[in-house]
Amino acid sequence: MKNSPAYCFELEFAVRDSEVDMFGVVNNSVYLRYLEHTRHTFLKSTGIDAAHMQQLGFNLVVTRIEIDYKQPLRSGDLFVVKLAVSAVTRVRFVFLQDIYHLSSQQLTTSARIVGTAIPPNGRPGIPDDFYQVLHTHLA
Amino acid sequence: MKNSPAYCFELEFAVRDSEVDMFGVVNNSVYLRYLEHTRHTFLKSTGIDAAHMQQLGFNLVVTRIEIDYKQPLRSGDLFVVKLAVSAVTRVRFVFLQDIYHLSSQQLTTSARIVGTAIPPNGRPGIPDDFYQVLHTHLA
Amino acid sequence: MKNSPAYCFELEFAVRDSEVDMFGVVNNSVYLRYLEHTRHTFLKSTGIDAAHMQQLGFNLVVTRIEIDYKQPLRSGDLFVVKLAVSAVTRVRFVFLQDIYHLSSQQLTTSARIVGTAIPPNGRPGIPDDFYQVLHTHLA
Amino acid sequence: MKNSPAYCFELEFAVRDSEVDMFGVVNNSVYLRYLEHTRHTFLKSTGIDAAHMQQLGFNLVVTRIEIDYKQPLRSGDLFVVKLAVSAVTRVRFVFLQDIYHLSSQQLTTSARIVGTAIPPNGRPGIPDDFYQVLHTHLA
Repeated sequence: MKNSPAYCFELEFAVRDSEVDMFGVVNNSVYLRYLEHTRHTFLKSTGIDAAHMQQLGFNLVVTRIEIDYKQPLRSGDLFVVKLAVSAVTRVRFVFLQDIYHLSSQQLTTSARIVGTAIPPNGRPGIPDDFYQVLHTHLA
Repeated sequence: MKNSPAYCFELEFAVRDSEVDMFGVVNNSVYLRYLEHTRHTFLKSTGIDAAHMQQLGFNLVVTRIEIDYKQPLRSGDLFVVKLAVSAVTRVRFVFLQDIYHLSSQQLTTSARIVGTAIPPNGRPGIPDDFYQVLHTHLA
Repeated sequence: MKNSPAYCFELEFAVRDSEVDMFGVVNNSVYLRYLEHTRHTFLKSTGIDAAHMQQLGFNLVVTRIEIDYKQPLRSGDLFVVKLAVSAVTRVRFVFLQDIYHLSSQQLTTSARIVGTAIPPNGRPGIPDDFYQVLHTHLA
Repeated sequence: MKNSPAYCFELEFAVRDSEVDMFGVVNNSVYLRYLEHTRHTFLKSTGIDAAHMQQLGFNLVVTRIEIDYKQPLRSGDLFVVKLAVSAVTRVRFVFLQDIYHLSSQQLTTSARIVGTAIPPNGRPGIPDDFYQVLHTHLA
């Protein structure tokens, strides 16, 4: 049995019926929207605004996602997305993000997100302040 | 019985299963994506690129949408979105957009889209070349 | 100047960055998702579950939407969707839904949603309990 | 250098501007919609309709996705999603799906999709006809 990582942030959501597909479950693509919104909200809570970074010429880029769909989310479900910073180097960062049903606390989805930042010069590299923030929250 | 407007452009689509909601029909919000993609593809066919306009500081803005949902689109449906330019002035434009099932040619959705352009000075106004293009295609 | 209707329900949201399009504003289609989630959450608060109705063979159907986009929502915005029941008969209902920025309380979007219910016999008709609930909340 | 798998199906798409996010690239979640639409269209081309299977009580379920984002898709891009059946057993199937820019033929995205089917008895198991179809197309 795998231990949970040391989460540093969490955000609650309610499933919207427009996110549920014809199979009666939240469509697999929608989870990536939940995960991104949680990452950006976490970053904003530390003073880092993805939109502002982009205006300065630094694009945050997801390079790889691994996601395990364990139990479906359905109409009416409330859930929480928890986030841990798993790794950060000068050229990439790794988040672990797990989704739990709020009522049952059952793990429904587990994801690993790898990303980097692209500065104006086009060569992947994590800006210093971004690196420091992630390093501080390292699980 | 209403006559069809003189369409100047049309674009075919296939429903994607991820666009069908828990009620077994294309979600009402998704039609607006079909309509926008058709408008932008029409504009591009006339040499006007919404993305390029935006880089020049001219934002294309939708100010009002009226949409009648007559028959639902479902999984597997092929359909065509037809477009007419209904009006254009120096400060706004109006598109009519109708969606037909490809097999039955039945009208499924009918929409009226009002928009404007916002130049860098922030006061709504249609750029000259954009005005000319729409005027040429006026129904 | 138009008076606000007597809202009977409201729901707060935060813009998700994945809902913001290349023009830096929430895409026009996304507002319909906010509006639907608010309607379904309102109905659930009165004991009516759209998903459950559908399992019983009653489909809730939107037949017309009119929406005015007055001010755009952007990355980071918090907003509230307010809802009023404007009309209900045996064959249709009308909701008014307005979106306000939370901080400025400025009206950003205003919509009128017309719908009906389709019972198993296929002829539009509002079920009694649904009619009573909407009638009780009539603005 | 990795060899390409033996693709058995491909489907062309055009990026819709509503799929492009505030960072000027197709949002990471949208790729999963492209991939699902390609899988369902492939299955339909072999006579298997995911919507019809679901009506018979067999749910197709994605259990894991690994996706590498190599180059972004942008406004106006045309691309093709290619698909290979990588493995199939009585309890799961694996698709490889790669996305290429149409003009440059450059590989932009590479994904591995693991799934299963849930019959009415709730215990994961691939129906015979589905197994045969995938086995026939095994790369």
